[in-house]
Amino acid sequence: MIASLATFSSVIETLGIVAFAMSGVFAALGKKLDMFGVLVIAFVTSVGGGTVRDLLIGATPVAWLKDTHTLQIILVTTILTLLLRKRIGNFQRTLMVFDALGLGLFTVIGIQKGLAFGLNPGVCVALGTISGCFGGVVRDILLNHIPALFHAKELYATTCIAGGTVYFLLNGVLDQEAVQTIAALVI
Amino acid sequence: MIASLATFSSVIETLGIVAFAMSGVFAALGKKLDMFGVLVIAFVTSVGGGTVRDLLIGATPVAWLKDTHTLQIILVTTILTLLLRKRIGNFQRTLMVFDALGLGLFTVIGIQKGLAFGLNPGVCVALGTISGCFGGVVRDILLNHIPALFHAKELYATTCIAGGTVYFLLNGVLDQEAVQTIAALVI
Amino acid sequence: MIASLATFSSVIETLGIVAFAMSGVFAALGKKLDMFGVLVIAFVTSVGGGTVRDLLIGATPVAWLKDTHTLQIILVTTILTLLLRKRIGNFQRTLMVFDALGLGLFTVIGIQKGLAFGLNPGVCVALGTISGCFGGVVRDILLNHIPALFHAKELYATTCIAGGTVYFLLNGVLDQEAVQTIAALVI
Repeated sequence: MIASLATFSSVIETLGIVAFAMSGVFAALGKKLDMFGVLVIAFVTSVGGGTVRDLLIGATPVAWLKDTHTLQIILVTTILTLLLRKRIGNFQRTLMVFDALGLGLFTVIGIQKGLAFGLNPGVCVALGTISGCFGGVVRDILLNHIPALFHAKELYATTCIAGGTVYFLLNGVLDQEAVQTIAALVI
Repeated sequence: MIASLATFSSVIETLGIVAFAMSGVFAALGKKLDMFGVLVIAFVTSVGGGTVRDLLIGATPVAWLKDTHTLQIILVTTILTLLLRKRIGNFQRTLMVFDALGLGLFTVIGIQKGLAFGLNPGVCVALGTISGCFGGVVRDILLNHIPALFHAKELYATTCIAGGTVYFLLNGVLDQEAVQTIAALVI
Repeated sequence: MIASLATFSSVIETLGIVAFAMSGVFAALGKKLDMFGVLVIAFVTSVGGGTVRDLLIGATPVAWLKDTHTLQIILVTTILTLLLRKRIGNFQRTLMVFDALGLGLFTVIGIQKGLAFGLNPGVCVALGTISGCFGGVVRDILLNHIPALFHAKELYATTCIAGGTVYFLLNGVLDQEAVQTIAALVI
């Protein structure tokens, strides 16, 4: 059960990294950056949220320094997204979808990590929200946008906080895995 | 005596959090952000300086993750400031006052924490200055201003460094509590 | 041998701090900041990369908090650069040279620290790149430039990654000190 939980968490984390890396690539393409710039933005968007989360709770060295998986996933995702971008179509909408997906997934992971560190549930929702939002905020600052977080008409971070709260309410009733799936999908 | 000192420190910290949260609310209102945006800016301005201070000295999990008081104070302050903002009047001047107040209070706390970690006094002044300034700098970056720190004609950070230095000079002569009160008021 | 290595590392670190502080001063002068603003930009550019590196690997308190040397070096460098700036001449070119120098030196130090913490070599190259680039990126964000990193036509961070990789390849063949010198010079 514990092994399966760990596996499940790492599947969610991988999905979140892929989703945010793709969102980073699409945002960078909108600004016509070169190959290296695209890779940096993909990287920052992907690991930004998790890095801040790990720094805040003191889980250092931060997750992506501990093995090369994260870096490899981001590299492969960036290259595949660049190659297949014509087929993926409309940038703006695609960016929104992957951004929302990454947001949901990272919020759930942030909450879980906070709970694992014995933090108060209310604080964990804040921590999860930061994990979810931070990658996108840094991406937008680097690309000189006003963070999407602020002009997306609440829909964005509000769902993130709401989702996190729902996560706790459900947590008492259902079992862990079901809750994770629901939370990630709903958000 | 130790208990009273701890209480006194936590009173100063609470005042600093309230002052910076109010400064964040006024800055965000100037940009006509929605309710959620205002809350985020208030939060970042409030905990930004202390978070960087705790990260730099390695005091993790950072202070505001350890209990829900800080989050509650920020939430209540934001709501009250929004409700009472018509009575508070002129935004720009009010923002300046609360910013200066938060700055002074956080500089003192930053210096104290640095000393408690056994750091060199000169380094502590730098750490205090960072604690004091960082919240406001991040607020200004997020709101796409040029940081007030740079165009306030030195008056700002210079007083902060000067206050910190005075703090040390006085420290040898007077007792702890008197010094704190004086330092916070003077700055 | 170990003592001489430590000395050599600290010489490289000092050179990197001086180079980045000078680059910060020249960038700030281009924006006509006052004396205090120039000092802050010099400080941030100098310690930014190393601070992020230390935070990510969990080496806290971060390096520049542990003694006053770093702060003193930055202060002296800033004052000397301001006094001698007429003799140094053309800002833009000088900025580029010191930026490149600091970049190379900090990349090497970042890689070494990563290895000392037992991290994977591929991850160390990423860590070194971040150490090298971050100070300049923060400087550019504070001065409201688009980070030089993105519009310098790859030449910048690409050489940094390439240099780091070369460092590892050489590492197996030559002895430590020779490699450091070569790597720093080549980059």
